[in-house]
Amino acid sequence: MSATPDAWPDLAGRIIDDETGRRHVLPVRVYFEDTDAGGIAYHASYIRWCERGRTDFLRLLGTDSRRLIDGSASHEPAAFVVRRMSCDFLRPARMDDVLIVETRVKELGGASVTLLQMVLNEARRVFEAEVTVVLVAVSGKPVRLSTAVRSAFAQADQGKVLGIGGTKA
Amino acid sequence: MSATPDAWPDLAGRIIDDETGRRHVLPVRVYFEDTDAGGIAYHASYIRWCERGRTDFLRLLGTDSRRLIDGSASHEPAAFVVRRMSCDFLRPARMDDVLIVETRVKELGGASVTLLQMVLNEARRVFEAEVTVVLVAVSGKPVRLSTAVRSAFAQADQGKVLGIGGTKA
Amino acid sequence: MSATPDAWPDLAGRIIDDETGRRHVLPVRVYFEDTDAGGIAYHASYIRWCERGRTDFLRLLGTDSRRLIDGSASHEPAAFVVRRMSCDFLRPARMDDVLIVETRVKELGGASVTLLQMVLNEARRVFEAEVTVVLVAVSGKPVRLSTAVRSAFAQADQGKVLGIGGTKA
Amino acid sequence: MSATPDAWPDLAGRIIDDETGRRHVLPVRVYFEDTDAGGIAYHASYIRWCERGRTDFLRLLGTDSRRLIDGSASHEPAAFVVRRMSCDFLRPARMDDVLIVETRVKELGGASVTLLQMVLNEARRVFEAEVTVVLVAVSGKPVRLSTAVRSAFAQADQGKVLGIGGTKA
Repeated sequence: MSATPDAWPDLAGRIIDDETGRRHVLPVRVYFEDTDAGGIAYHASYIRWCERGRTDFLRLLGTDSRRLIDGSASHEPAAFVVRRMSCDFLRPARMDDVLIVETRVKELGGASVTLLQMVLNEARRVFEAEVTVVLVAVSGKPVRLSTAVRSAFAQADQGKVLGIGGTKA
Repeated sequence: MSATPDAWPDLAGRIIDDETGRRHVLPVRVYFEDTDAGGIAYHASYIRWCERGRTDFLRLLGTDSRRLIDGSASHEPAAFVVRRMSCDFLRPARMDDVLIVETRVKELGGASVTLLQMVLNEARRVFEAEVTVVLVAVSGKPVRLSTAVRSAFAQADQGKVLGIGGTKA
Repeated sequence: MSATPDAWPDLAGRIIDDETGRRHVLPVRVYFEDTDAGGIAYHASYIRWCERGRTDFLRLLGTDSRRLIDGSASHEPAAFVVRRMSCDFLRPARMDDVLIVETRVKELGGASVTLLQMVLNEARRVFEAEVTVVLVAVSGKPVRLSTAVRSAFAQADQGKVLGIGGTKA
Repeated sequence: MSATPDAWPDLAGRIIDDETGRRHVLPVRVYFEDTDAGGIAYHASYIRWCERGRTDFLRLLGTDSRRLIDGSASHEPAAFVVRRMSCDFLRPARMDDVLIVETRVKELGGASVTLLQMVLNEARRVFEAEVTVVLVAVSGKPVRLSTAVRSAFAQADQGKVLGIGGTKA
């Protein structure tokens, strides 16, 4: 069984562009590892799922995390780290549920991206978050987004991003 | 080697009451499980550590989570679930670091508690969050905090809580 | 974006039946959450991935875990718990790798199933394990596999299972 | 609240040497993050707890993991990775339980250590494992244990280790 993208075409989710805007969607299944003794999905599981969504969004835009870490996608080895996150847990999710993680670009800064993420369970919103990630070098210093990364995200944000090149971290 | 509280007196942290206010402190070590390929603590690890802090604060106040789940600490089986969380990731933490999770009561609602939590690394703040948890029954319905739980938290909040018995969820 | 099986046909992997035998295959991506400061996949991540494989194998055989827990798939609420596991970690896996988890039935006992699981990275074996799981009721007592579960697994094991109904736990 | 070892003297557990042999003991609390929807501790949690035990054993022997990774504790940057593990899950553990992780050296190889680990719940064994870890350089090559690491472990194994300097990986 091959592990090529062809064999599992949707493994990194899909980028959708319709009347409700451009966004990345990724299905995640709730497994035992994601639940807790309360019988529902553990709250930190949503944080992990959102990170999968952001990582795969970036992947479909053409840049995977390892290329960033290796430095082959920018001037020096770097990684996106979470700087700020605000989350609302709206409804519980349960074992075996199939959830959809939706990720949209809200705003691009010089070295940062702010994303809106939500988790849906059969079209009902169960979680939503605004997350700001910063591209940071091994040294700990913020790294300016490369033109490639920037235009990929900007494309995903189709014109709504007026703040490109702004001064936000 | 006994596992009694006497054998490991600080396992659930300590409640401290000094000039900077009443709060719960819990040390956590950064292990491999908490780190990621970026070489630093994974961001969702802070969410897990804060949950440990809240759970042990409640424990030292006299109520452990299993008694809530069993229903022996309230009228029906219940658990605190996270409703809202806003987090700032200020500095990275690394493998082997000893961090301190500080938890303070900010506000008591009818069925909820809002806490201020921060994670310190040698007195430097590396993470801070405001977290609202709600006591929820198995049915999914919010459960009014029992007098015991309420007075324990209120005591921890020593007089700053004017909103006790308020209408917030 | 719908979360129906049709929308994401391979989300639970596939059951394959060819010259190398009947088995379940599930792709898993290595995300930041799965890695550690050593720069590779954390060893306990393989344990979680194998559990996903077993859960989805069972799902494609017609029984999801929630139905077991609810009691709707057997006489009483029950869940498969791991009793014994022996694991070889053969090669490291890294951030962004796409791995394949393969699961085969080795042997059926009265209340247990022994599975052979391996994790492949581009056809190279990186991990293998033999795992025995037991169906256990809420009371903690082993529960005899229902005819439906048994025949589903036996089918997956196509005739090699002579020990059906045996005395193994 | 200081994070110095003095402030939390038992944070890395203790090394005990009595009639049942020399071993490291570490208390771990079962938190929500460690449980699953079956209401008990998730099986991979034991794997994480054992890793904490090994890491803290090494720490009390004088070598922390970051010094290994940095290369300051050996000739080149290295880390202990798990090569083989066999585990028996004997009894369930539950939310709020205080468990003790016991770790003993079974055998020292040239680049490897085999450990016996068990998890106790009020003196009853709930989990046991034999775990072989190998010291591996960034290059992926096994690294011969330094004299310091070797003698620390050998001391922990007090004379039972005849195979020091042997040919095992």
